[in-house]
Amino acid sequence: MEIQQTHLYKEIFEQPEVIQRLLDHETANVNELAQIIRERNISYINIAARGTSDNAGRYAQYVFGAHNRLPVALATPSLYTLYKRPPLLGNSLVLGISQSGKSPDIVAVLAEARQQGALTVAITNSPDSELAHQAEYVIPLHAGEEQAVAATKTYTAALAAIALLSSTLAADKQMLNDLRIIPKAIEKTLGVLPNIVEHAPRYRYMEKCVVIGRGFNYATAFETALKLKELTYVLAEPYSSADFLHGPLAMLEQGFPVFVFANQGPLLPEIQILIQTLSKLGAEVVSISDDKSILEMVNIPISLDASIPEWLSPFTAIIPGQLLAMYLAHERNYNVDQPRIIQKVTKTK
Amino acid sequence: MEIQQTHLYKEIFEQPEVIQRLLDHETANVNELAQIIRERNISYINIAARGTSDNAGRYAQYVFGAHNRLPVALATPSLYTLYKRPPLLGNSLVLGISQSGKSPDIVAVLAEARQQGALTVAITNSPDSELAHQAEYVIPLHAGEEQAVAATKTYTAALAAIALLSSTLAADKQMLNDLRIIPKAIEKTLGVLPNIVEHAPRYRYMEKCVVIGRGFNYATAFETALKLKELTYVLAEPYSSADFLHGPLAMLEQGFPVFVFANQGPLLPEIQILIQTLSKLGAEVVSISDDKSILEMVNIPISLDASIPEWLSPFTAIIPGQLLAMYLAHERNYNVDQPRIIQKVTKTK
Repeated sequence: MEIQQTHLYKEIFEQPEVIQRLLDHETANVNELAQIIRERNISYINIAARGTSDNAGRYAQYVFGAHNRLPVALATPSLYTLYKRPPLLGNSLVLGISQSGKSPDIVAVLAEARQQGALTVAITNSPDSELAHQAEYVIPLHAGEEQAVAATKTYTAALAAIALLSSTLAADKQMLNDLRIIPKAIEKTLGVLPNIVEHAPRYRYMEKCVVIGRGFNYATAFETALKLKELTYVLAEPYSSADFLHGPLAMLEQGFPVFVFANQGPLLPEIQILIQTLSKLGAEVVSISDDKSILEMVNIPISLDASIPEWLSPFTAIIPGQLLAMYLAHERNYNVDQPRIIQKVTKTK
Repeated sequence: MEIQQTHLYKEIFEQPEVIQRLLDHETANVNELAQIIRERNISYINIAARGTSDNAGRYAQYVFGAHNRLPVALATPSLYTLYKRPPLLGNSLVLGISQSGKSPDIVAVLAEARQQGALTVAITNSPDSELAHQAEYVIPLHAGEEQAVAATKTYTAALAAIALLSSTLAADKQMLNDLRIIPKAIEKTLGVLPNIVEHAPRYRYMEKCVVIGRGFNYATAFETALKLKELTYVLAEPYSSADFLHGPLAMLEQGFPVFVFANQGPLLPEIQILIQTLSKLGAEVVSISDDKSILEMVNIPISLDASIPEWLSPFTAIIPGQLLAMYLAHERNYNVDQPRIIQKVTKTK
């Protein structure tokens, strides 16, 4: 099958319009929700999610932390479902993120939270789902049906829902204006396609790799690694640059492939030092970056538009990640819409 | 060098006495701390840690959640250090865990928390460290100097500090009594050594694997994977059984090695279903379990004592993980005390 005819390809390229739709339709709804969050004196956030949605949750940790000063905990669903010992959620906001809204463990966290009287919000592409029914407030993703098993457009749509909520809550016009440029920025970034097509064959026989990101792009590293696993079956392990130094660095040997997300911002000097260390150790460093000095340091540079504020860079940085996983799967003759073994909706307890 | 003469070997075998010492010396101190936690109406916990200490933090998420109904967030240190946008910690307990007490990012989280007026606690093997100085309360690990780069005795000592604090806070005599049996239980578990020595050569050429645990033993999966990476340089990726089903399962192919921690308790039926799935897909399943039916299902069974309550099973379940990593490194002629590249104290910002 021609790759342009696959659902995955089409869904990756639909991302600008999906986010535009979400921003157009959800501004009023999110305004109302932000008002409620202020009134209820929410002091922190609990997030329940799995897989790609959990990676959107990782983005939420940094966005709500940096812009709204709200700590974010990623929930431990088994305490609610299997152990039946749910924590007391107090005056936290409990946020469930799920494309399908169907995973019983995520639904169970929201149901318990609502029973405890916590403020519950669902971010989902299925506003008629069980998850949406359990939540007091719903932010629908407006992504249209996602048919490829590997989630792409629902990931960036979930990021957009989070970014919109954070900006609205901060009542920060600059943030809201910046968010409005994202659909165009993604469209422009989809132009890295030829660069990815050119490099994909090099990784035809790669069996393992590490993907590194930190801060806002911690999520991008996790989501890129997940796409690589789902689509190319490569054992791709994601790390924050700091966590990677606390032990796993020992794995590195000559030629070990390391993908590093390195956007301009306060983290850049740390990432620069990391890349120097990786290079000295003989690793093959691929960097997805909007910084010239980084791109000049690495084996395979993948250049990003430098005009995006760092907190929004996960929207564009993930594009080369998605494209790389797709083209690498294509190089290996794998079915990019239906990877082996897994299904679109995974129901875990 | 004879393996019995290495620091790593000695430190693994010191674990029973270290935990005994901690329980003997810290009971009064922890009682006082529990009283303060009650008085200050702590509603949730923020934990800052890296590497092995972060894995102890993963155990804390389940222990404090299940027994004290306290949600636990794992902190995002870069918000404090590089972004300089620390979240508001409100009436949370902020817990720093670090063997050396020296990593600047962990110290920075505690320093900010104390400035904000949050209750700060350090769990560290270095009561004179910067981390200890920043904290209002310190629980010293009493582990003696740890000389091997890969942490073992400071890991189980940190688990013991967490278990002691949780039991004391719950004022639960049964929990406290159960905790007292742990030194003996670890001693008994160290008897699995011949079983591990026998199986280690089988994995001489393993390049990648997955390590699965959930609930209380989510931490055990992460810590086993970290020891494998540090000591044997194998890309070992840890997963909760639920997260693994949401995508990464696609990686499985004939003979893919999967290590599964499966202790008796409410999670067992889910783990059983997972193992059936793995077996059907032709994976090589190694299970560390105290359940007969599980041990009969898998390729390589490693049997654990069934008399330990599930919430304390991470103390014994990690022993085969530590021993496996050590013997596998030994089979590969790696230096088990000083792995390549990494150092004992890692300082990240």
